[in-house]
Amino acid sequence: MQRFEYFTDDDVQKIHEATLHVLESVGVDFGYAPAVEVFKKAGCRVEGERVFLSPKMVMEQVAKAPSEYTLQARNPDKNVAIGGDNIAYIPCYGPPFVHDLDRGRRESTLEDYANFVKLSYASKSMDITGGMMAEPNDIPHARRNAEMMFASMRYSDKPFMGGAIGAEAARETIEMAAIVFGCSEAALAEKMPMISILCTRTPLAYDDRMLGAIMAYAKAGMPQLISSLSIAGATSPVTMEGTLVVQNAEVLAGIVLTQLIREGTPVVFSGSSSAAAMRYGTLSIGAPEMAVNTAATAQMARFYGIPSRGGGAITDSKLPDAQAGMESMMSQLMATLSGVHFVLHSAGILEGYMAASYEKFIIDDEICGMCKRIKRGEKADPEKLALDVIAQVGPGGEYLTHMHTFRNFRREFYTPIMEQKEAYAGWKEKGGEPIERAANRKWKEILEDYQEPGMPDGAIKDLEKYIEKKYGK
Amino acid sequence: MQRFEYFTDDDVQKIHEATLHVLESVGVDFGYAPAVEVFKKAGCRVEGERVFLSPKMVMEQVAKAPSEYTLQARNPDKNVAIGGDNIAYIPCYGPPFVHDLDRGRRESTLEDYANFVKLSYASKSMDITGGMMAEPNDIPHARRNAEMMFASMRYSDKPFMGGAIGAEAARETIEMAAIVFGCSEAALAEKMPMISILCTRTPLAYDDRMLGAIMAYAKAGMPQLISSLSIAGATSPVTMEGTLVVQNAEVLAGIVLTQLIREGTPVVFSGSSSAAAMRYGTLSIGAPEMAVNTAATAQMARFYGIPSRGGGAITDSKLPDAQAGMESMMSQLMATLSGVHFVLHSAGILEGYMAASYEKFIIDDEICGMCKRIKRGEKADPEKLALDVIAQVGPGGEYLTHMHTFRNFRREFYTPIMEQKEAYAGWKEKGGEPIERAANRKWKEILEDYQEPGMPDGAIKDLEKYIEKKYGK
Repeated sequence: MQRFEYFTDDDVQKIHEATLHVLESVGVDFGYAPAVEVFKKAGCRVEGERVFLSPKMVMEQVAKAPSEYTLQARNPDKNVAIGGDNIAYIPCYGPPFVHDLDRGRRESTLEDYANFVKLSYASKSMDITGGMMAEPNDIPHARRNAEMMFASMRYSDKPFMGGAIGAEAARETIEMAAIVFGCSEAALAEKMPMISILCTRTPLAYDDRMLGAIMAYAKAGMPQLISSLSIAGATSPVTMEGTLVVQNAEVLAGIVLTQLIREGTPVVFSGSSSAAAMRYGTLSIGAPEMAVNTAATAQMARFYGIPSRGGGAITDSKLPDAQAGMESMMSQLMATLSGVHFVLHSAGILEGYMAASYEKFIIDDEICGMCKRIKRGEKADPEKLALDVIAQVGPGGEYLTHMHTFRNFRREFYTPIMEQKEAYAGWKEKGGEPIERAANRKWKEILEDYQEPGMPDGAIKDLEKYIEKKYGK
Repeated sequence: MQRFEYFTDDDVQKIHEATLHVLESVGVDFGYAPAVEVFKKAGCRVEGERVFLSPKMVMEQVAKAPSEYTLQARNPDKNVAIGGDNIAYIPCYGPPFVHDLDRGRRESTLEDYANFVKLSYASKSMDITGGMMAEPNDIPHARRNAEMMFASMRYSDKPFMGGAIGAEAARETIEMAAIVFGCSEAALAEKMPMISILCTRTPLAYDDRMLGAIMAYAKAGMPQLISSLSIAGATSPVTMEGTLVVQNAEVLAGIVLTQLIREGTPVVFSGSSSAAAMRYGTLSIGAPEMAVNTAATAQMARFYGIPSRGGGAITDSKLPDAQAGMESMMSQLMATLSGVHFVLHSAGILEGYMAASYEKFIIDDEICGMCKRIKRGEKADPEKLALDVIAQVGPGGEYLTHMHTFRNFRREFYTPIMEQKEAYAGWKEKGGEPIERAANRKWKEILEDYQEPGMPDGAIKDLEKYIEKKYGK
């Protein structure tokens, strides 16, 4: 499949130049003394927390970030390449609530988090287990990261996402990973079994917790997303281009920091900016402007030779309804066609990141499967052109019983997770249900059939000891 | 916005060459003697109904079809340009059933048809009124076309779609249009107030009714879609490329016929081929393979310099649920990004063309509005880059109250038809409804507020007389 480019090269160049101008003349606030120190040492102009970056140093440092790298899973078959022509789908991140058709909306717990780890492990389309898929509100704050990481490492053998709340959570995640992989932290930097998302405080600022984690992960050589979520019309200009300039400036400033700390630290250029719902002054992630930002983010990241993150199966809807379906497909398909490499929020999101839905997780998994089928692309070779078959069947004939059909249909056609393809009568006979009902059965079936992938000897005990030692029983 | 190209130019060339090979060596069946005569006269090799077309004659005739033209509406503000960088959205076509949340699924009537004309007239996104949006099952077969055309001409002032069932329906549509526009049929050929869809009998055949209409419209110089709907794995090869070859061969053969009858007849290269749902042996229009075919159809039509038709807000779902939303957005966004010019089925379709849904019509209208916003594109000029604004607000500031936001947000942001953007609490307070409920209120509100655009003096009486004379009271 060829790639979709939304902006012209000329517009990309203009957005780039405007970004350099902002970094040099407006600057970015870094609310964490150790970070400001790093920039000072590197010769940047600094006024209090505000750091001004010259075009020369920005381009020099950004050039040091790798354009492609691989996250090593506990199960090597599940390693994930970030960059190039690859795309990775990663489930929802951050919701404090969960939703399902049986119990409705409620505060999420550690059990919900573990359930989403299991659903991600079982999914053909989710490449990375994810992190913070649902906030474990039933666990004391201090202990949450350790419990989530334990669940991620235990219930799935895919690469996972690390904790992001401060240097402490980052250190903890690295130490626990070292236990599971039974290796030194230096060796862990070779494996890179995880990736974390660190966010700006838009507009044009970073806070101490995020900077602490950015620096800790960079020191350890762990991959991280440097992420900006500007709200056009609220935390950035109402125009797409102005928002891209702010997003760009924030992300590049953070990437420069990672490279100053450890040259070659793997990063992802992460943009999830969208429009404000002006009537409410709130963020709208189901807006078409979000899809435009996703395509543009992929283009800007390509311009800098860094893997990109954008899009996802995201919606403002409160239920897994038609709005959820159309908004989620819009952003997911746009990310897929635009060459985004890392698609966070690929499954489960409702309510503009506020809730994780069990049914929508399955529906979005279907969306991801369809998008991957489209991205797989086509090649007009003789077997695919099938000229001999067309001649044999001729006008008015049928292809259902032809060997060529049997030989190719499994590879050629996407096979849905939930069969909702029969004609009306057959569907009615089966109960005449909307798709969220089929999804409700599906996630229960997956959790019932779930079996642990298994851990290296003693790893579970050692992790339990590690957590108990830090936080008690 | 730049255009998305799915296939490489090299693959497009290969599909083209394979198509010419099929047209010359396999041939196409034309089940209508007058059509076969036209090909004979033009010097084609003919065996019974089977016509073989040489590459030379195919390319010569196809080159005569215009790449861009304008349909003139009764209201000149609503003229529609077909081709170039333009895209036109046209509602559902063909369903024998209708569905709404109050009455469920039932056979459609002329009242339903008229209602969809009114909804299309009221829509900002529907560019053409449409035709056969719901089969008027309560009207005698012979009279159906006349009644539908009367409703299309009376209740909307946009361009409309003409009857397609045989030469008689085509003649009738032209005669009725001449009454409304108060002009000769020759003059009507200048105005081109309508466009019709004529379909192949896949694989590689045409039947008498479609050929009768194709020839009648071509003689009158009326624009028409030459349309192929191959079912990969059933009526064409299971591979995308093989299906494209069959679709291409059918469409090009029909276009050649139109140009032999009247050089320069405006046509649309129309492809709506998709995958079979192998488990059921039925057509699946919600499949990702349909989106691939849509992108490829746009590319092939560009290759021949002819406007294209593909995609639409189409689904296999039986209800306006998440499946309907995601499948409809997939095909509609793909059509929009791929440079399709004429998007039939842009609103209302359920059940793989079997039912027209009142609620989904409104939901799809939202999808079309979002897609048009994306297609509008962006330009990185100073007002949009907003460097001065970014400098004024600075790090940590806010943009909500800035003049630049007030000045631009209406133009910049898409405004939803149905407001479902507020946070959970506000939505819950309003009743906590899924979007199909908001759509249910919306279509009733539109039909209640509907007012006829008005007709030229006496036109309504003359049309009534015309129908009465032909079919009685």
